[in-house]
Amino acid sequence: MGEKIRDILLNPESGVIDPLAETFLFEASRREHVKEVINPALHEGKVVICVRFTDSTLAYQGYGRGVPLSYLCYLNDIATEGVMPDLTVLFDVEPEVGLARSFSHTEEEELRFEKEFLASKEFLFAVRNGYLQLAKESPQRFVVVDTTDYSEEEVFFIIRDTIWQRLRGRG
Amino acid sequence: MGEKIRDILLNPESGVIDPLAETFLFEASRREHVKEVINPALHEGKVVICVRFTDSTLAYQGYGRGVPLSYLCYLNDIATEGVMPDLTVLFDVEPEVGLARSFSHTEEEELRFEKEFLASKEFLFAVRNGYLQLAKESPQRFVVVDTTDYSEEEVFFIIRDTIWQRLRGRG
Repeated sequence: MGEKIRDILLNPESGVIDPLAETFLFEASRREHVKEVINPALHEGKVVICVRFTDSTLAYQGYGRGVPLSYLCYLNDIATEGVMPDLTVLFDVEPEVGLARSFSHTEEEELRFEKEFLASKEFLFAVRNGYLQLAKESPQRFVVVDTTDYSEEEVFFIIRDTIWQRLRGRG
Repeated sequence: MGEKIRDILLNPESGVIDPLAETFLFEASRREHVKEVINPALHEGKVVICVRFTDSTLAYQGYGRGVPLSYLCYLNDIATEGVMPDLTVLFDVEPEVGLARSFSHTEEEELRFEKEFLASKEFLFAVRNGYLQLAKESPQRFVVVDTTDYSEEEVFFIIRDTIWQRLRGRG
């Protein structure tokens, strides 16, 4: 189901997909993911690592696209039945730097990058600001790693040590 | 988008789709439908006739599949931004009669019908009971037409007169 939903989200028929319709699709996918993958793993005592979860909905659809946060909290809550991460690692980066990383350094790509950045600048700043706000509101759960200045290897070690400490703390 | 979602709902990968995931998909589709079709038509002063709307979610996913009605009311409300029908016509029918109508009268089809009815009997009764409950709670909005005994033509005339009276009542 996740893949078919992804296809709808990436190939909207009518230009831009409505932010709330988009949210419902993400929540359908999340619901299945929690029920079919995350919950069974947790019940087996496994450690679950997940790329993007409920915070991403708040950051992208809420802060980024303007869906009221109260709607999103409710939807997240019923989709996950209250399952929340013990630790959330936020890979923070300046939007311009983050976007540039997804482009290669040919001249043509640089031009494409400039265009893309100008078009999505406001959205990217709003999403980043949203994530940082969420981190500020739950300092116990969030670890924010500045990936603008740190190298990939340094980031790896920071994350590894953070997770290690948390797991040790839980015995 | 509606068609792609329909494809997911009709061809679930893992046997039976989770009722809440199913609900989210219906609400995504409803949201787009309200925004792209229903609201623009209402703003032009048109009369909108829609087959299945928010009550169907309450009847099928709520009464039929057990999703809490409080969840569904909330989801319906944000998906439609509170847009509600002035009149809801419920075509009531005994589940066995209703299901039989979708089968032809060959012997093979009769066998297929028996099997289908036994498999979905409980669900069909719960959904019907749900619809009748909703009608009871909103007697001003609902008109329940008994289609077990009336012919197709009789049903047509009942509906036509009902809609006509309502439209006249509104001037």
